[in-house]
Amino acid sequence: MNAQTTLFLSRDDAELRQKIAEVAPQIEIVSRAQLKDHPERLEQIEIAYGGLNRDQISRATALKWFQNGGAGVNGLPLSELFAREVQITTVSGIHARCIAEHLFGMLLSLTRELHTAREHQNRREWKPLGGNILSLYGKTLGVLGVGAIGAQIARVGRAFEMKPIGLRRGGAGHPEIETMYTSENRLEFFARSQIVMNVLPLTDATRGFMGEAEFDALPDGAIILNAGRGATIDTPALLGALESGKLRAALLDVTDPEPLPADHPLWEMPNVFITAHYAGAHPEYNAEADAIFLDNLRLYLKDEPLHHVVDKTAGY
Amino acid sequence: MNAQTTLFLSRDDAELRQKIAEVAPQIEIVSRAQLKDHPERLEQIEIAYGGLNRDQISRATALKWFQNGGAGVNGLPLSELFAREVQITTVSGIHARCIAEHLFGMLLSLTRELHTAREHQNRREWKPLGGNILSLYGKTLGVLGVGAIGAQIARVGRAFEMKPIGLRRGGAGHPEIETMYTSENRLEFFARSQIVMNVLPLTDATRGFMGEAEFDALPDGAIILNAGRGATIDTPALLGALESGKLRAALLDVTDPEPLPADHPLWEMPNVFITAHYAGAHPEYNAEADAIFLDNLRLYLKDEPLHHVVDKTAGY
Repeated sequence: MNAQTTLFLSRDDAELRQKIAEVAPQIEIVSRAQLKDHPERLEQIEIAYGGLNRDQISRATALKWFQNGGAGVNGLPLSELFAREVQITTVSGIHARCIAEHLFGMLLSLTRELHTAREHQNRREWKPLGGNILSLYGKTLGVLGVGAIGAQIARVGRAFEMKPIGLRRGGAGHPEIETMYTSENRLEFFARSQIVMNVLPLTDATRGFMGEAEFDALPDGAIILNAGRGATIDTPALLGALESGKLRAALLDVTDPEPLPADHPLWEMPNVFITAHYAGAHPEYNAEADAIFLDNLRLYLKDEPLHHVVDKTAGY
Repeated sequence: MNAQTTLFLSRDDAELRQKIAEVAPQIEIVSRAQLKDHPERLEQIEIAYGGLNRDQISRATALKWFQNGGAGVNGLPLSELFAREVQITTVSGIHARCIAEHLFGMLLSLTRELHTAREHQNRREWKPLGGNILSLYGKTLGVLGVGAIGAQIARVGRAFEMKPIGLRRGGAGHPEIETMYTSENRLEFFARSQIVMNVLPLTDATRGFMGEAEFDALPDGAIILNAGRGATIDTPALLGALESGKLRAALLDVTDPEPLPADHPLWEMPNVFITAHYAGAHPEYNAEADAIFLDNLRLYLKDEPLHHVVDKTAGY
């Protein structure tokens, strides 16, 4: 730590400032507004909590620790930060519960025909449905990416009496997962997955992870959900699998490209449901992210290892 | 059992007939079509699997066992059947998983703003949402009616890290439920329930179970779901609680009256989502109902106690 530590706060919030003052009374805070008026202060920033762009990061030559405000760091200049030995931490974990809620909400909207029910309600029509209902119980749930989010998804899947299998780097087992696969035997994983929930981060290893071969491997009538990153799925391969009828549906919180342009074919395909990248949003988000940052700040000031550090090799 | 047992089958299905023949080769089957042509055969029917109306039941003087095709028997002439010592059985239990799926689908459609997302998709608009999101985790889930369905609801709620409390006749505890209430201390139950899932059967004791006092007892901003029977909720009291803002939302698979007339105010209230009484529908329904009936048929022929018998005192 420098004699005078300067912290950049992307979100200026009186309550957060108060909590920072309790942890580190000596710290100097630079807000987004102050940085706009005094761009030269970039060079003093030792700690950043969210919100610096690539150019600002390049010019923040004193930066030692970057606390990301989200879980995904694929937008950061990772190789530059690693080369400069800047520690990068995320708020990984605070999305687990709400992303599981979002994904099962999207899935059940489809399987219980809730969009159609809503249209009937809008026309004041009482019409029992059922012809396109699919039961979750007994289905094999392929959890693509088993970290905190994937584990919570598997746990909910088990409560619905689904059979969760998983795929993760390294392939270490997990108590909520019946069988764990790796990228090496991914086609076996996809061949068993009647419903895939993709929560992969975007790295060199996961870009285009689901391509033509992976879609081909799926059981006919499979459902694919994505709340990881859009580019982990090859969009042309996805469109092909939807058009051929291989897929029953694609439920996407993330897309590639993003935002999805108004003329993109995904918008109007009959078996596609899109939510605009907000699966991770929940009212407690800032409070939970701040709690992680404040914990890390305490550790940083004591020169102890931080939590949720981005792994240089894995890239997430 | 009579010398010649006659069975009425509401749903005529070659596979079901085959299975019945395996269990009871000697049994004579009367289909709905045959009954139409020969109404006098009503008097021969000893066993009915679904589909007789009140008038037909009155005239089926040889009837000894009525296997209902659904879980709810509030449409049957119960007192007459009990007086005639006709056994009544249901397919209770086969709805548990799909009703839990349906209720959480309705709930998550609301809490994850999925109806709004769908409207944005219809306009090809990429608009992240979040302002009205509610997290399930940490919320107290009031399970109103803890049988097979309520237990499954509680189990899923726990996986979402909700806190399930319950209310049931008799008040016996349940491993998935933290605290169990009865109708005597129902106001304490409602006072704690941020989200109520009502799966009560309709009996003399449950008609209008949720009235003005119960809605008043709820925490402000509570959400009420109903997949039991519409008349367990007093509709004017529900409308009042919606209009006053006491309730955040009402998500209804059943209503009173039902079907809901096109001019009913519930249709267009902003915080109401209606599905037309199909929470219990699922593709495996007939196969699972038939399995219960066939099990019971085996027991009946051996003069052993049947499963899922309607309790004379409770009325369900």
